[in-house]
Amino acid sequence: MTNPSLLILPGDGIGPEVMAEVRKIIDWYGAKRGMVFDVSEDLVGGCAYDAHGTPLTDETMAKAQEVDAVLLGAVGGPKYDKLDFSVKPERGLLRLRKEMDLYANLRPAQCFDALADFSSLKADVVGGLDIMIIRELTSGVYFGEPRGIIKEGNERVGINTQRYTESEIARVARSAFELARKRNNKVCSMEKANVMESGVLWRDVVQEIHDAEYPDVELSHMYADAGAMQLTRWPKQFDVIVTDNLFGDLLSDLAAMLTGSLGMLPSASLGAPMANGRPKALYEPVHGSAPDIAGQGKANPIACILSFAMALRYSFDQGAEADRLEQAVEAVLADGLRTADLIGEEGREPVSTAEMGDAIVAKL
Amino acid sequence: MTNPSLLILPGDGIGPEVMAEVRKIIDWYGAKRGMVFDVSEDLVGGCAYDAHGTPLTDETMAKAQEVDAVLLGAVGGPKYDKLDFSVKPERGLLRLRKEMDLYANLRPAQCFDALADFSSLKADVVGGLDIMIIRELTSGVYFGEPRGIIKEGNERVGINTQRYTESEIARVARSAFELARKRNNKVCSMEKANVMESGVLWRDVVQEIHDAEYPDVELSHMYADAGAMQLTRWPKQFDVIVTDNLFGDLLSDLAAMLTGSLGMLPSASLGAPMANGRPKALYEPVHGSAPDIAGQGKANPIACILSFAMALRYSFDQGAEADRLEQAVEAVLADGLRTADLIGEEGREPVSTAEMGDAIVAKL
Ligand SMILES: CC(C)[C@H](C(=O)O)[C@@H](O)C(=O)O
Ligand SMILES: CC(C)[C@H](C(=O)O)[C@@H](O)C(=O)O
Repeated sequence: MTNPSLLILPGDGIGPEVMAEVRKIIDWYGAKRGMVFDVSEDLVGGCAYDAHGTPLTDETMAKAQEVDAVLLGAVGGPKYDKLDFSVKPERGLLRLRKEMDLYANLRPAQCFDALADFSSLKADVVGGLDIMIIRELTSGVYFGEPRGIIKEGNERVGINTQRYTESEIARVARSAFELARKRNNKVCSMEKANVMESGVLWRDVVQEIHDAEYPDVELSHMYADAGAMQLTRWPKQFDVIVTDNLFGDLLSDLAAMLTGSLGMLPSASLGAPMANGRPKALYEPVHGSAPDIAGQGKANPIACILSFAMALRYSFDQGAEADRLEQAVEAVLADGLRTADLIGEEGREPVSTAEMGDAIVAKL
Repeated sequence: MTNPSLLILPGDGIGPEVMAEVRKIIDWYGAKRGMVFDVSEDLVGGCAYDAHGTPLTDETMAKAQEVDAVLLGAVGGPKYDKLDFSVKPERGLLRLRKEMDLYANLRPAQCFDALADFSSLKADVVGGLDIMIIRELTSGVYFGEPRGIIKEGNERVGINTQRYTESEIARVARSAFELARKRNNKVCSMEKANVMESGVLWRDVVQEIHDAEYPDVELSHMYADAGAMQLTRWPKQFDVIVTDNLFGDLLSDLAAMLTGSLGMLPSASLGAPMANGRPKALYEPVHGSAPDIAGQGKANPIACILSFAMALRYSFDQGAEADRLEQAVEAVLADGLRTADLIGEEGREPVSTAEMGDAIVAKL
C-alpha cells in the first residue's frame, strides 16, 4: 500500500510560519505512529503570483486533484491589493475550491474552556459552545455568471449572479444532515427566502431532502439576518447550521468570532469521494494571512494544526488520532501557554509560533 | 401653511399595538406643542393581503408618495408563510422602499446605559456604543433582474442578480459622508471586493466620492465577513458604516443585537428631497412583527416611538423635539420601567405596551 499523500500550500503572510509547525506534527505521526505521509509543497496566492504571474498554476492545480488531501495556510496581503481581480491571491483559493468541487465547507465554532474569557461575549453565552456551520462552497454568487463591471450609457454597473441548482443544494444539505446525525441531530438552514427566489428554492430543497431521507433529524429554517442575530444572542441554540456560500462567509466568521479564539479555528472543505473512497479535501485555518504580524514568529499555529486534525478525521478515518491531537492542544492551553493573540489582560508572557508547535508535539 | 402629513401603516403582528402608543405621542405633540399632523392610516403586509389580496394596494402606494412621512409598524407572520412569493407581506414593504426610492436606510445601533447588562456581550464591549449603519435600500440583490426559479433540464435553478450602478453607490455614499460629518467623521465601507465585481465597483465609487467631495472624512474599507467579525469583537471602532442592501440587512441586524435591546431600535429610510424640501421618508422599528406575542400587550413600543423621533429629526427638522422624546424614553428606563422583553434575571414586574407608552407621554 502506498502512503497517503498531502499537498501543502503555505501561501502568504503567516501561512508559511504556521504551516512549519504543522510539518512538525506530521513528522511526529510518521516517526511515532508509523503514519507516514507523502508530502509535497507548492505555491498559492500572492507568492504564486510573484513567482508565476498567476495565483495558482495549472501544475499545482493538477497536483491538488491527485493528492489525498490539501493543507492550505492563508492567502492575500496588501501588497496584492492593486492587482487585477482575475489574478488576486484569492482567485487561487477559489479555483481550488471550484475545480476540486469542494462543496461542503465545515466550519466548527468551538469555545475552548481555557479561552472563554477571551470572547467579547459573556462567559455563559459562549462557554461550552460547540456548533458546526456547513457552508456551500462551490456555487452561489461566488461563481455565478454573468458577472463583471460593464458600461451602461456613461455609467459603470457592477453585476454578480446568485445561482443555485437543486442538486447543488441537495448535496450540501445531505452533508449537513449526515453530520447532524453524528452530533446533536439538529439542523438549522439559513437563507433569505423572504426576498430572494434562490432562497425559496434553497428552503424547499433542504426541506424535501429532509422529509425524504432524514426525517429523524430536527430541521428548522431561519432568515439569514435573524440568524446573525440569534448567533449573537444565544449561539448555543444551534447544532448544525447549513447555508449558502455568501451567507456562510459572513455567518461562519461571525460564529468564529463569538468564540473569541479566531487563531484556534480550523476548517475542512470536502467534495465527492475519489476512487480510493476518500473525499476530495482541503483543510485550512479560518484566520487570514495577517500580514501585520507575518514573519515575526508571533502567529498562533493552532488553527492550522487543528485543520490537520480535521484531515486525520475526515480524510484518513483516524478519529482517535484526531482526538489525540485535539487533546494535546487543550493540554497545552491548560498549562497556560499562549501565543500573543491569546493574551488578555492577565499579562502573561506570550510564546512564539515555534514554541507553541513544539509544546504540542511534546504533549503528543 | 398646511399641517405636515403622516401616513401610518401599522401592519401585522405587534405592529398595531406599538403604533397605538406612537399615536399617543403624536397627539401629545399636537395638544402640547402645537405640532399638529394630518394623520391617515392604512394597511400593509399580511393584513392588506387579507383585505385586498395584495400586500400593498396602488391606492396606499399613491398615498405614501404624497405624504411627508410614512410610519410603519411591522409586516409578516407564519400565517402568510405559504403565500406565493409575489404577494408575501414583505413585498408590500419592498414596494414602498423601491417606489419611494428610499435609498438610504439609517440604522443606529445604540446601547442604552440602563440596558447594557441586557446584551449578550460584555459590558465594556457595548457600553456607550453608538454607531450608525447606512444600508443601501433600493437596489442590489433585492431588486436585480433576472430573478426567479427556472427549469434547466429536469432541475430547478434559483437565480437572483446583484446589480449596482455607479450613481446608486454614489448617492448612498454621500448620505454616509454627510452623516459622518455630523458625528465622529469616520466612515467604514463594507463589501466583498475580493470575490465580487459589484464589490470592486462599490469600493472604487465610495473612494472616488470621498476623494472628490469628502476628503475631510476618514474613510476605510473592510470585507463584509471581516466586518461581521469586527462588529462582534470591538464595535466601538466604528462610527458610520455604509454597505449594500444584502450585507446591510445582516450587518445591521447583527449590530442591533449587540446592543441587547432590539425592542429599542428605530430606523429611517430616506430618499431624495420632495418639492417641499423634505426627503421622501419611511420610519420603522428594527424589530419584526413578533407574532408569538402579538395581541397580548407585551410588546415594547419604544423602537416605534424612537422611529417617530427620527421622523421629527430627519423629516420635520425638529432636532430639539427629537432629543426631548429620546430623553423621555431614557428617563422612563432610568425609572426602572421595563416591558417583558427587557426583563433580565433581576425579576422585575414587566409593564404593558400601553403602560410604557403612557409613561413616556407623562415624561414629555
Ligand atoms: C479569502 C476569501 C476569498 C474567502 C471567502 O470569501 O470565501 C475567505 O473569506 C473565507 O471565508 O474562506
Ligand atoms: C422584512 C424584510 C423584507 C426586511 C429586509 O430583508 O430588508 C427586514 O429584514 C429588514 O431588515 O427591514
